[in-house]
Amino acid sequence: MYNVIIIGGMAAGCKAAARLSRLSSDYQITIIERNPIVSFGNCGLPFYASGEVDDLYELGKTSYGVVRDADYFRDVKAVDVLTKTEVVDINVDKCVTCKTVDNEQTSTLPYNALIIATGSKAVKPNFELPHSPVISSFLTAADAKNFREAAQKGKVGKVVVIGGGFIGCELTEALRSLWGIETILIEKEKSILSKFLDPEMARLVENRIEKNGVQIFFSNEIKKVETDEKNHPVTCFVDGKKIESDYLFYNLGVMPETELAKTAGVKIGKFGGIIVDEQMRTSVPKIWAAGDCVETKNLVSGKPDYFPLGSLANRMGRVAANSIAGRDDSFNGAAGTVSLKVFDLVVSGSGLTEKKAKQYGYNIGRVIGCWKDRPDYHPEAKDLFGKLIYEKESLKLLGIQLVGEGEVNRYVDVVSELLANNKTVNDLLNIEHGYMPAHSSPISPLNYLGYMVLNQETDGVLNVKAEQLSSYNGLFIDLREPVEIDTASFSHKAVHIPLADLRKKLGDFDLNQSILFVCERGPRSLEAARIFMNYGYKNISYLGGGNNFYKEVNKSSVKYVDSKKEKNESINTLS
Amino acid sequence: MYNVIIIGGMAAGCKAAARLSRLSSDYQITIIERNPIVSFGNCGLPFYASGEVDDLYELGKTSYGVVRDADYFRDVKAVDVLTKTEVVDINVDKCVTCKTVDNEQTSTLPYNALIIATGSKAVKPNFELPHSPVISSFLTAADAKNFREAAQKGKVGKVVVIGGGFIGCELTEALRSLWGIETILIEKEKSILSKFLDPEMARLVENRIEKNGVQIFFSNEIKKVETDEKNHPVTCFVDGKKIESDYLFYNLGVMPETELAKTAGVKIGKFGGIIVDEQMRTSVPKIWAAGDCVETKNLVSGKPDYFPLGSLANRMGRVAANSIAGRDDSFNGAAGTVSLKVFDLVVSGSGLTEKKAKQYGYNIGRVIGCWKDRPDYHPEAKDLFGKLIYEKESLKLLGIQLVGEGEVNRYVDVVSELLANNKTVNDLLNIEHGYMPAHSSPISPLNYLGYMVLNQETDGVLNVKAEQLSSYNGLFIDLREPVEIDTASFSHKAVHIPLADLRKKLGDFDLNQSILFVCERGPRSLEAARIFMNYGYKNISYLGGGNNFYKEVNKSSVKYVDSKKEKNESINTLS
Repeated sequence: MYNVIIIGGMAAGCKAAARLSRLSSDYQITIIERNPIVSFGNCGLPFYASGEVDDLYELGKTSYGVVRDADYFRDVKAVDVLTKTEVVDINVDKCVTCKTVDNEQTSTLPYNALIIATGSKAVKPNFELPHSPVISSFLTAADAKNFREAAQKGKVGKVVVIGGGFIGCELTEALRSLWGIETILIEKEKSILSKFLDPEMARLVENRIEKNGVQIFFSNEIKKVETDEKNHPVTCFVDGKKIESDYLFYNLGVMPETELAKTAGVKIGKFGGIIVDEQMRTSVPKIWAAGDCVETKNLVSGKPDYFPLGSLANRMGRVAANSIAGRDDSFNGAAGTVSLKVFDLVVSGSGLTEKKAKQYGYNIGRVIGCWKDRPDYHPEAKDLFGKLIYEKESLKLLGIQLVGEGEVNRYVDVVSELLANNKTVNDLLNIEHGYMPAHSSPISPLNYLGYMVLNQETDGVLNVKAEQLSSYNGLFIDLREPVEIDTASFSHKAVHIPLADLRKKLGDFDLNQSILFVCERGPRSLEAARIFMNYGYKNISYLGGGNNFYKEVNKSSVKYVDSKKEKNESINTLS
Repeated sequence: MYNVIIIGGMAAGCKAAARLSRLSSDYQITIIERNPIVSFGNCGLPFYASGEVDDLYELGKTSYGVVRDADYFRDVKAVDVLTKTEVVDINVDKCVTCKTVDNEQTSTLPYNALIIATGSKAVKPNFELPHSPVISSFLTAADAKNFREAAQKGKVGKVVVIGGGFIGCELTEALRSLWGIETILIEKEKSILSKFLDPEMARLVENRIEKNGVQIFFSNEIKKVETDEKNHPVTCFVDGKKIESDYLFYNLGVMPETELAKTAGVKIGKFGGIIVDEQMRTSVPKIWAAGDCVETKNLVSGKPDYFPLGSLANRMGRVAANSIAGRDDSFNGAAGTVSLKVFDLVVSGSGLTEKKAKQYGYNIGRVIGCWKDRPDYHPEAKDLFGKLIYEKESLKLLGIQLVGEGEVNRYVDVVSELLANNKTVNDLLNIEHGYMPAHSSPISPLNYLGYMVLNQETDGVLNVKAEQLSSYNGLFIDLREPVEIDTASFSHKAVHIPLADLRKKLGDFDLNQSILFVCERGPRSLEAARIFMNYGYKNISYLGGGNNFYKEVNKSSVKYVDSKKEKNESINTLS
């Protein structure tokens, strides 16, 4: 018998076990999991916390209603599962030492192959948190269960959520829309979801969260959290403010859980994750690793990165199993494609943000746009906002961010494939999509983004983003119809010339005059810019995404925080 | 001045005009259109017919509510539009002769470049249709307007729709769900939508249409249509039956409109479309063509094909304009990606159907699957049905078909990109998608389809389709739980062994016994097949898509028509 020990019974570990079992009956496979449950859909915790999913065990069930517990793995997969069991030592090349969580009994299990799939753990704040049942992260079943029981007893009227990342946003929606709980979101950065959205795109999401009655504090670092022996209230000290609540969640992100792996001497990378090759082998012979405990290659930058995503964990687990079985398979990295639903907004991104791309030293270009996601006549047409980041010289694609209420994921999924294969903006021009008025326009937003880049790079029609307007000294021309201006005025002083009248005014300005065109979403401005440039104007730009985007970015409800660095990036440096 | 004449003012023509105008003010651009309107969203006609879109002019408006008429094109694009004007002759290398539709005045317009964008026309039946206001195709604004006026007057209680293609299906939904009209769909083939769906996938759509109270007659050719001078009733003679109705639509497909092009001597291809190169140049110097009047390359087969799709027409128009302007751009063909909403079912496909792939001589493999489109715990998880077609030796991707109620298009869009780039099944294994429980599962259906193919090709775990079961002589093993069998029994005699009990029965059968596993959607069967094969069984297969798919294909409401050819394709020929 060939013994395979798998440490960790979530996505990566269970997938590896299942795959190995399918490949041959010659493997004696054991999953060791410290928690009482395995193969559990952690990503569903917000649905359990909110009550949309009634029973916690639903998150661990098959499509036919059977819980994926130790019995299931034994009967169906011929895999042994030891729950509530912790691996305390790895004796390299030989065995692991386990300890039961309940009674601390130790035992030793020999292995021929070992897979470390210990997942991730919550990043802790840099101060001591009081031990309290109403202060927790939101990562485990216990976290969710504990909260839901308190909420059901009516004990939770107000919650503070620290950290506006993925989990923080999902949790905020669950608290707000299903429990109606007063919720305050505190974000250290100047915008939420900063790992995959640039600030102006995040603004769309922040507005939606605020519209649903959640207060967001930006650029606010928590200094201290206090509570008393009655666990009430929880007091949170933030930049001179004191916020009291009934419950506090901290979601400061996750980091690879590698304490045990380190004792085996496997190499750890700069993101704190286990370094693996494309077959998920660690630096130590006979030890593989998969899932949230490893770091992988960012296929866009070519550099190491950390993507704690359930979709990737599954694929890594499969590759580890194939590798152990000597099958040809590889996991060569990821573009980092993510998707999130926040209230009725779908938010999706892939590749590098503008900020990250600059950090990597790329000379970036970017375009921002807004379109209806269906033909204008369709009664359910919704706004779709998008941003594309690329390298100026090569036109290599670097990243995409899309936000809207309709079909958003489809476009990012496609760009994800292009990003993973080092494609350029030119590859967007002939993207073919399944067009039907009920779900899409005949011209895909990906085609449009490609066109906008070519206009910018080939013809010098500059796409300007909202934050740059404050430092703009030229002339604004608002191309909208009177009725549009009445509905939503543009907050800078502008000359009003509806697009249809523009050609009559071609001779009215100095050809060296800097002119920035504005309309509702952008296409009219791009058209106007080309008309003026064809006539001989030299300094022409337009507002990407139009006033529709601009008014989102400049909503007065929350002050948009301009960092000093971005203020210096005036439009002139772009041209 | 450089004169550009564009014949046809729909998607391709208008896009070419707009693009040329943006490129330079040196072009004198004229669009000549025989109808009274231009730049009109034809794909929105079902929404107008149904009443969802109130005014026909909505279909020709910009996002800011301005009608894209001759004034709009003159003022905004500096493009002249001659509506209700027909080109009657092309004097090659020189000029076109026009005639106004109303008073037959002729004029001559010189050109330096000519773009033919005459679009498509309805395929007529092979018998004479009576001239009647209640008998028409459903392609033009006039067709839709005429019907809606009659429907609003309450004159239409029952409609016969001939042809279950794209337009026939959309129209059927509009008639049924918004007007509540008794509707009969008559299809010449044995299944609807046969250009992009194989019969078993079409079955899902047919069931949905029938569930909404529409009767479908399959394999029925219309022999004759009659009406009297009162235009009532319309009598339709079909294979021995006589069907009376108040209105009859024929939608037998479209073909390239090339009468005029032929007079100019441009080469016409085997699909009846104008032959163009990758810059949309015809065989005649200074004449370009774009849109539904051209045929193009099928990027999967590498052979000529005809794709009358609005999305492609736009892209072709842009390429034609760029070519005239000497800009680098190309349209190299299409995978033929289509999407359709029929009631609440989203239907999408790309590449070749199984039937078409076989006609092209490919030695094809195929897998069929069914999954929940979200994690099982998600309250809104829906069934997603999929089929993948590939070449057996090379694993080259040939086609995909997906049907479901949730996000369907995203997966087909990605495969479309792979198909257009000659990728293989291996490229599906590491597809990265934006995973979030509200819209998708952690493992993409594309990953699953890839896994299923490798199981089939590498390990001999055969994925069998529903139609093959009638000729299967081996043993059926139904792996479902008792409660599932009670809810939906499997219509073949089967041994019942719930998956969890299967390993106990490993020794119960002869290792040479042919066994076919069945479950609800397929994954359990694939698992069981691997367990049995690892034990030493030789002839193992499973039902792709499970009983869930099987019961759709075998719904008794309509007899599923097995052609003789398909009956001969027994399972043995697959192994």
